[in-house]
Amino acid sequence: MQFTSQERLDDDCLEREFTVGEIPGILWTPASSPAPLILLGHPGGLDKMYPRLLGRARQSAANGFATATIELPGSGERPRSSDADEARGDLRRALAAGEPVDEIVDRLILPLVDKAVPEWQAALDELLSLPDVGGPVGYSGGLIAIGVRLATVEPRIVAAGLFAGSFVPRVMFDEARRVTIPLHVLLQWDDEGNDRQLALDLFDAFGSQEKTLQANMGGHTGVPPFAGDDAARFFVRHLA
Amino acid sequence: MQFTSQERLDDDCLEREFTVGEIPGILWTPASSPAPLILLGHPGGLDKMYPRLLGRARQSAANGFATATIELPGSGERPRSSDADEARGDLRRALAAGEPVDEIVDRLILPLVDKAVPEWQAALDELLSLPDVGGPVGYSGGLIAIGVRLATVEPRIVAAGLFAGSFVPRVMFDEARRVTIPLHVLLQWDDEGNDRQLALDLFDAFGSQEKTLQANMGGHTGVPPFAGDDAARFFVRHLA
Repeated sequence: MQFTSQERLDDDCLEREFTVGEIPGILWTPASSPAPLILLGHPGGLDKMYPRLLGRARQSAANGFATATIELPGSGERPRSSDADEARGDLRRALAAGEPVDEIVDRLILPLVDKAVPEWQAALDELLSLPDVGGPVGYSGGLIAIGVRLATVEPRIVAAGLFAGSFVPRVMFDEARRVTIPLHVLLQWDDEGNDRQLALDLFDAFGSQEKTLQANMGGHTGVPPFAGDDAARFFVRHLA
Repeated sequence: MQFTSQERLDDDCLEREFTVGEIPGILWTPASSPAPLILLGHPGGLDKMYPRLLGRARQSAANGFATATIELPGSGERPRSSDADEARGDLRRALAAGEPVDEIVDRLILPLVDKAVPEWQAALDELLSLPDVGGPVGYSGGLIAIGVRLATVEPRIVAAGLFAGSFVPRVMFDEARRVTIPLHVLLQWDDEGNDRQLALDLFDAFGSQEKTLQANMGGHTGVPPFAGDDAARFFVRHLA
């Protein structure tokens, strides 16, 4: 892990860009250390996602948590995958035509999860070796399929706040049943690009004894501020 | 409105039992006045519900809110309704046999809503005439059908926290579409005596631009403490 930049933000949160191997990432740490760590999931494209990631990082730092994220395979400055690009095009066309998407979702999401999750785990190894980052660890955000896999295979993650805003291959529902950590699932009820019933079925499938679904209005990117506060309190309950 | 008892609770909340006509009720007021008012809904039977109502009243008082509740028609010490008792028996039998319940729900709930809602409105007239109770007014709890009707017909109610734990006649979905006030809907996901799909359909039907569904585990009576806190913050946002 190599740090490539460092900036002290005005709320005393330290922002550092890094690379793990070829993968770029960002780490935010609060003044108090060692801080519990929240991995910030996203749909890919760190530059585009930066403003929203920064907002979540600042709120987490205010609660005493470090946050970190890495670029997804095939996104941002990382090499594109022609298979994934083709699947993405097929998904758009199928959604527009109202055709079934299950096979396309499998083709798009399963290889991405298979590749991304070991990368997040390798980044986690490096992050937890830093003096100002400690456990326990949470996962927050999307892609929800990455969160599901991480919650299943990575025992260092003890709580997950998942954003139900992307497709999950049906074969991963078996993994969801094996998830036992506390979950806080955000669903934008009027998110037209999202399969609401799939999100409800996935919430039902999770094996966790403590799981909360919070559905709000406001479209895909319109999560209300109070919902962000509720999600932040979920991590305070489980990581602080 | 006649007060029949008065007790200062240890957290400086004043509990007064009252009657409006023949209907018994309870009013809790915080030290600060005049306080915004939350009407506490319940499934009927004030004596049985008292411990849970008191908990909600104390939490509301801590946030500076007065709370009040009245007995439902046919419950507690009020005269029973043979039609309602018969419908309740039919509902139990139909649920146990896995038979359709829509007609029975109509027979049980519609007359109850028709009778109860004007009673809540009459109580509200009296409560708002007290010097230590002011507006705005919220409605919190079940029966959810009473909350839906009140949210539709009573303009003094500006926010409702609804407990999706009882049946709603399908004909009332048209009323739900006319609801425009902010809503916070609690659903116990694993509540076996509840129709989850009906609760989700009802949430979808509400016309409100700000509506939140929060689903948790724990069975019908097992709403987690953090969910109570989230509901309390909903009223702070809209009544304080």
